[in-house]
Amino acid sequence: MDYTAGQLGRVFVARLEEGESVYTSVEEIARREGLSAALVLAIGGMRRGKVVTGPEHPTGKIVPHYEEFDDARELVGVGTVFLADGEPSLHFHAGIGRGDSALVGCPRAGMSVFLVMEVVIIEMLGIGAERVPDQASGLSLLRLVRSPQAG
Amino acid sequence: MDYTAGQLGRVFVARLEEGESVYTSVEEIARREGLSAALVLAIGGMRRGKVVTGPEHPTGKIVPHYEEFDDARELVGVGTVFLADGEPSLHFHAGIGRGDSALVGCPRAGMSVFLVMEVVIIEMLGIGAERVPDQASGLSLLRLVRSPQAG
Amino acid sequence: MDYTAGQLGRVFVARLEEGESVYTSVEEIARREGLSAALVLAIGGMRRGKVVTGPEHPTGKIVPHYEEFDDARELVGVGTVFLADGEPSLHFHAGIGRGDSALVGCPRAGMSVFLVMEVVIIEMLGIGAERVPDQASGLSLLRLVRSPQAG
Repeated sequence: MDYTAGQLGRVFVARLEEGESVYTSVEEIARREGLSAALVLAIGGMRRGKVVTGPEHPTGKIVPHYEEFDDARELVGVGTVFLADGEPSLHFHAGIGRGDSALVGCPRAGMSVFLVMEVVIIEMLGIGAERVPDQASGLSLLRLVRSPQAG
Repeated sequence: MDYTAGQLGRVFVARLEEGESVYTSVEEIARREGLSAALVLAIGGMRRGKVVTGPEHPTGKIVPHYEEFDDARELVGVGTVFLADGEPSLHFHAGIGRGDSALVGCPRAGMSVFLVMEVVIIEMLGIGAERVPDQASGLSLLRLVRSPQAG
Repeated sequence: MDYTAGQLGRVFVARLEEGESVYTSVEEIARREGLSAALVLAIGGMRRGKVVTGPEHPTGKIVPHYEEFDDARELVGVGTVFLADGEPSLHFHAGIGRGDSALVGCPRAGMSVFLVMEVVIIEMLGIGAERVPDQASGLSLLRLVRSPQAG
């Protein structure tokens, strides 16, 4: 376990419309506002998507398992923004429900809002963190570049 | 996509008791404390409820689909408070689980705490946002009244 | 319903590694950094765990129902840290998904990270709250020790 400390900065409230993506929208806000680290909370509807819900196999090379839908569901999600190659990159996990069942996963492979989504973005200042490609997993993972216990 | 920026304000920690509602409780705190915008996080138990889990049909007029239960479940939820007609109004989505299955949705149609619920409310200042009735959907939706990109 | 008010403090970003526990890690950070109240958000993978998903029976003495798994799942969770007997104690609820289904509950009985978990910890200052054993439920529950409406 590694960690780093910072301060809270500004807060942003966004309204996403039918068909928009939480990834595109949050990363655009982060670019415009110069955010290099942020916490993201989202509630609303998701019309369609393609969601990673675990690896196909719990060991060995990670092959993502996908669930797809196009039937308008309810969403509650949490994410983080850090820079990857100098550009803001959102990592976002959500619970996504319809009727009496739900998915929990990462809708990075496809994400389109149903009706409206409310997003709150909390800026974090002084956080030394970025996303870097990880060869073993094939994913882009958080790396902390400063840490209190390393000081 | 539209957004607006503000500052973080005070934080409140609430303990809700058996039988209370996160809607009634959070809106009462918001009224007493003069909150016009806030982020809400909740963890705890939910004894019974009536939860919107998507529309009955993905297109056309929105007819909410409801799931009801009365068997004491675990909850994790995220919400926002904005003013509607000058009064604080909570919008809240939650994952709600029992045994090996879970719902994700909006428990606005009925929400009663099981045992205890912890709620954290983060005030947002300078956010120009309110909830207004939307005729097309029949719902009360977030509207941003100031926005950086409109300036 | 009871509540208490405070201010937001520092923010911490942690990266947990394969096999680590969000409980051990967050409580260690809280101890090192002198946190007596905090809000916790987590996204990432959970390899194995034992999750409380409601009571066995909705009335009478609370007997926790457990779900166990060891197959690598996706997680999104929210927690709070308060002191119990002078030591930081994490209460944490999560949605945990694999394939087309999900659990929502409290993984306090066993929690081991898959690959990596991102955790954001927001310090809360001036919050008079602690966790105390509750005889009726057999659980350790939040107790507010100062409250605006008691003043």
